[in-house]
Amino acid sequence: MLVPLNWNGENLEILDQRLLPMKVEVIEARSMEDVISAIGNMAVRGAPAIGIAGAFALAFAIRSGSEPALSAEQIISVRPTAVNLSWAVNRVLNLPNLDWKTARDEALKIQAEDLEMNRKIGANGLELIGQGARILTICNTGALATGGHGTALGIIRTAHSEGKNPFVYSCETRPRLQGLRLTSFELAFEKIPFASLADSAAASLMKSGKIDLALVGADRIAKNGDTANKIGTYMLAVLCQFHGIPFYVAAPTSTFDLGTADGNAIPIEERASSEITEIDGVEIAPNSTPVYNPAFDVTPGNLISAIISERGIHRPPYEFA
Amino acid sequence: MLVPLNWNGENLEILDQRLLPMKVEVIEARSMEDVISAIGNMAVRGAPAIGIAGAFALAFAIRSGSEPALSAEQIISVRPTAVNLSWAVNRVLNLPNLDWKTARDEALKIQAEDLEMNRKIGANGLELIGQGARILTICNTGALATGGHGTALGIIRTAHSEGKNPFVYSCETRPRLQGLRLTSFELAFEKIPFASLADSAAASLMKSGKIDLALVGADRIAKNGDTANKIGTYMLAVLCQFHGIPFYVAAPTSTFDLGTADGNAIPIEERASSEITEIDGVEIAPNSTPVYNPAFDVTPGNLISAIISERGIHRPPYEFA
Repeated sequence: MLVPLNWNGENLEILDQRLLPMKVEVIEARSMEDVISAIGNMAVRGAPAIGIAGAFALAFAIRSGSEPALSAEQIISVRPTAVNLSWAVNRVLNLPNLDWKTARDEALKIQAEDLEMNRKIGANGLELIGQGARILTICNTGALATGGHGTALGIIRTAHSEGKNPFVYSCETRPRLQGLRLTSFELAFEKIPFASLADSAAASLMKSGKIDLALVGADRIAKNGDTANKIGTYMLAVLCQFHGIPFYVAAPTSTFDLGTADGNAIPIEERASSEITEIDGVEIAPNSTPVYNPAFDVTPGNLISAIISERGIHRPPYEFA
Repeated sequence: MLVPLNWNGENLEILDQRLLPMKVEVIEARSMEDVISAIGNMAVRGAPAIGIAGAFALAFAIRSGSEPALSAEQIISVRPTAVNLSWAVNRVLNLPNLDWKTARDEALKIQAEDLEMNRKIGANGLELIGQGARILTICNTGALATGGHGTALGIIRTAHSEGKNPFVYSCETRPRLQGLRLTSFELAFEKIPFASLADSAAASLMKSGKIDLALVGADRIAKNGDTANKIGTYMLAVLCQFHGIPFYVAAPTSTFDLGTADGNAIPIEERASSEITEIDGVEIAPNSTPVYNPAFDVTPGNLISAIISERGIHRPPYEFA
């Protein structure tokens, strides 16, 4: 089974997702700083996975004698949009009798629970997937983004293993190409048939009647269902609405942020312009090119046909409590 | 002034646009085969520019003693979507007293006329551009794509020189990044302020109210206004419709194909999967990745607020004659 994070008894092994699928290399993180660096440079990414990594980071901080609350703040600030990071770090921070071993055990528990939630999401979403469904997705929402199995890609995995024969159209997901690199890697690994495409080609695919549904993940879901996710998700939601195609979001409830009333309150991370002007450290356009590079966008709940969590299928209007 | 093609008295100098903006190199084409190769590998691209190049290719063929009609067919088949290629080649082929010098002179005339048409398009489009307009565009429709000045980017050039202070949001235009590489290059050259973005970020830019209008080029416009253009254009048209933003197409009448009733009859070129899996010849994902890579899409005329040609501003419903 593919997993992005593995506790080896002493330290945290992080599969370096920046190098996939061309190279499989593991970073052994031995400190909070190592984990923070891996979250910041996206060696580990995906809302649930960075939550798990953040929990281990806090355990490391406590092991080295750092003040837990300050360390927690430091970890949470690395990536602002996904709520799983603060959710997981705060869950560890608020433990009674907090020491490094209880923190580590809680991180392991968060990881195991996430895998279990994803399997439930897969089972819950199954009824939305018709026989031979042609599913459009974006970014990577698979085992690599989570504690294992995946959210949106987890539903596809479940549908495939249940004999529904899904076909996946996978948006390459500029700028970092998580679709082309990571989702392709997972789909090939599972022998699920697919094609990768430029994000901008999704619209004409829909027009030509080749998409039965879109299924994406989430980095944060507000109380009213507004959903922050990878840049391009809102684009797909509008295109689905225009073409009369169902648009689904899959996420564990650790991605729900009941403290956020709606999407306007979700902070959107802007990342370095080099994500656009460089690929693998090689300049493809001058680094001086002015760039607008938001990592996420917000899809209003009213464009989302259903949200699938481990609790079941939620339908609009959303009013999470 | 930037030009993609220059007749040096003997041969055709082709600016190798695959290398821009990192390197400025010129290919000296001495034969039909040289030009065909440059059109096929996209050293020269842009509907009007490949029309001009095609006309020179036919002149070369005649110079070397090849049969004109067969050569014309060979040239036209290199890229099927843009109608300018067959338009320009057939214009040369149908000359009375066809020899290589009359063919060459006609190619030079097509080039000069295209520049003139673009200046008229720029003047005609000016009234659609408000003071300080924030304009979204895709691909490259500038001097590099044409005989000079440009179509959509030509209007922006004119608006800038007329003191309208446009700001350009330039979609990077996967897979070949003509927006990031070529449009950025031209805008920087002209000192027109801009930002480049992932194609998938256009939707959230519109939602945040930062786009006043979209302005794109065309590879072929059918009798009813349906327009084939770079993949992603249809996406922008749908997004503009959803957000109530005007969506304009700029093209010379050499791009109008009155023999094509509607968009369904426009052939859409699919290009190699390596355009997605490689950048500058370097593998960014395994070449074995299955890929869907159409080079163009078709925007229905009813999503186009106006089409600007050298003749004026055309409004829907379109019925070109």
